[in-house]
Amino acid sequence: MKRDSTPTIKDVARESGLSLATVSKVINGLPVGKKSRDRVEAAIDKLGYHVNAYARALKSNKTYCIALVMPSLKHPFFAHLVDELIACLTGEGYNSILMITNYDPMTEQNCFSLVKSNKADGVIALTYSPDLEVDESIPIVTIDRHLGKKIPCVSSDNFRGGEIAAEKLIDLGCKNLLFLRISAEIPGEPNRRCAGFESVCRSRGVPYEKLLLLDKESDDPIYRFLEDRIHDGNLDFDGIFCNSDILAVRVKRFLEAHGVDIPDQVQIIGFDGIFNPFTGGCVCSTIVQPLAQMAQAAVTLLMNPFDTTEGMNVMLPVKYIPGGTTKD
Amino acid sequence: MKRDSTPTIKDVARESGLSLATVSKVINGLPVGKKSRDRVEAAIDKLGYHVNAYARALKSNKTYCIALVMPSLKHPFFAHLVDELIACLTGEGYNSILMITNYDPMTEQNCFSLVKSNKADGVIALTYSPDLEVDESIPIVTIDRHLGKKIPCVSSDNFRGGEIAAEKLIDLGCKNLLFLRISAEIPGEPNRRCAGFESVCRSRGVPYEKLLLLDKESDDPIYRFLEDRIHDGNLDFDGIFCNSDILAVRVKRFLEAHGVDIPDQVQIIGFDGIFNPFTGGCVCSTIVQPLAQMAQAAVTLLMNPFDTTEGMNVMLPVKYIPGGTTKD
Repeated sequence: MKRDSTPTIKDVARESGLSLATVSKVINGLPVGKKSRDRVEAAIDKLGYHVNAYARALKSNKTYCIALVMPSLKHPFFAHLVDELIACLTGEGYNSILMITNYDPMTEQNCFSLVKSNKADGVIALTYSPDLEVDESIPIVTIDRHLGKKIPCVSSDNFRGGEIAAEKLIDLGCKNLLFLRISAEIPGEPNRRCAGFESVCRSRGVPYEKLLLLDKESDDPIYRFLEDRIHDGNLDFDGIFCNSDILAVRVKRFLEAHGVDIPDQVQIIGFDGIFNPFTGGCVCSTIVQPLAQMAQAAVTLLMNPFDTTEGMNVMLPVKYIPGGTTKD
Repeated sequence: MKRDSTPTIKDVARESGLSLATVSKVINGLPVGKKSRDRVEAAIDKLGYHVNAYARALKSNKTYCIALVMPSLKHPFFAHLVDELIACLTGEGYNSILMITNYDPMTEQNCFSLVKSNKADGVIALTYSPDLEVDESIPIVTIDRHLGKKIPCVSSDNFRGGEIAAEKLIDLGCKNLLFLRISAEIPGEPNRRCAGFESVCRSRGVPYEKLLLLDKESDDPIYRFLEDRIHDGNLDFDGIFCNSDILAVRVKRFLEAHGVDIPDQVQIIGFDGIFNPFTGGCVCSTIVQPLAQMAQAAVTLLMNPFDTTEGMNVMLPVKYIPGGTTKD
């Protein structure tokens, strides 16, 4: 790309008839007599001079840019999270460099070098590789993952979300529960959803099963499992907690196609609270993650690092919203 | 945020025992004896030195960053477009600063100053304000909009899309057609959808009506219009072309709730081809915009500006895909 020659601070000095030092003071907000300031500002206006962000960053060693590391924007959860993060960062005067990793470990690893090479002041990352090497001296906040002892992690209260889902299904009359998850091999905060669910099932004496798939590419084993457990149009379970809204809607469609009525025969609760662009509501009954609050917490932690020797885990409250796949 | 002191090119020179000039040559890929190169590279490895992107940018006057200006990531069309744009830019060695405008004219206007202040080398923008002031000397490519005579615009072939929708509805037996659009006041390439649709209706002698709403906030006037045109469970129209998939699905839901069967009584075609995360397919029968090709074209045009006196309009081919709201 070509770039036209743009006016420099030297041109401003020449135009205003003042020294470079005086022009520099005006540009950097330092005290200068009103007359000189007016002349410099008139010259800036006339020439259309803009502060060179790179020159300023080199001096201050700040870029006012944050790298956002996300797996994809095709999943609405990530797209909405990025939307909220950029809103918060813009409010703080920061730009956002968005890195899309497509779940590739090498790409995830490379994103952290953006800070080392002075392209960003910090990183907010939602990664999938279990063994990233991260320099804990650079400002990093993660969403849902633990990348190092000193790196703060922001998540929703996944354990409580699992508890709420089980409580709700039991309160709505379910007597045989099922937990379904894909991509179960990824360590991180979402693992607590199953733990919270199981804890309530056990304490309330309600039988349950769970199916955790390691593969994130295909739901087929879940469909085969469900098909095996349908007898005479009845599923062995009357309540299902799915690890995501997308899985919940897919399971709903699969069961309906096999003659199982949702929510009359089987009630389903998902997780995430993804936004339905057609209705403006949720896509199923779900545990809603507070995306705006999570984004605000991640940005606040990045801007105001706490001096902790142990990692900080910020958990934000979830809530249940009915969305047509339960009887409430 | 704090930043730890990082090694500089001077530290590399000291560590390797070579001159700054030699180290600089190695870093910038200029010819240097193998022995010296090995020593410099060993020093770089040992110190963990990273090229300072800001220092390099100041010298080359390139940032290797492109500003992407988008209204929102809550709409799946924009989220997928950004996903594709970042994939193309990453392939070219560029980072992406993502600016979310929330349709605010002032925010849209401010995005262009990123290039002036040397934070980005160019801009790819999808804006909504009809009267942005844009400096045509900076590298800009737009999606769907015309911002200036010299600024190239990338879009899908919207006129052809409108033609295909009308042809398809007529071929599938529709005899009374309707075109629906919200946000119709925004000038730009999507306006051609209606023109293409009308052109086919006229040439094939099929009666049609159109309803173009200026407001982008509410679909209510469309619902009131449809309600007025339902008599004894029958709509006055048997084929509807909607300006977007989201509107198409909303219209489908509204009509079904009023006892009109889709697609038996009324067939509906949308526009965009937005991805359905639950099925992996489309959300309705639709005219698909080729997002990956549009992204590639926008990036290629930005990287290789053509010397045109008149604006360049790159239109990419659309295709029809059935998705349950038509009889095919």
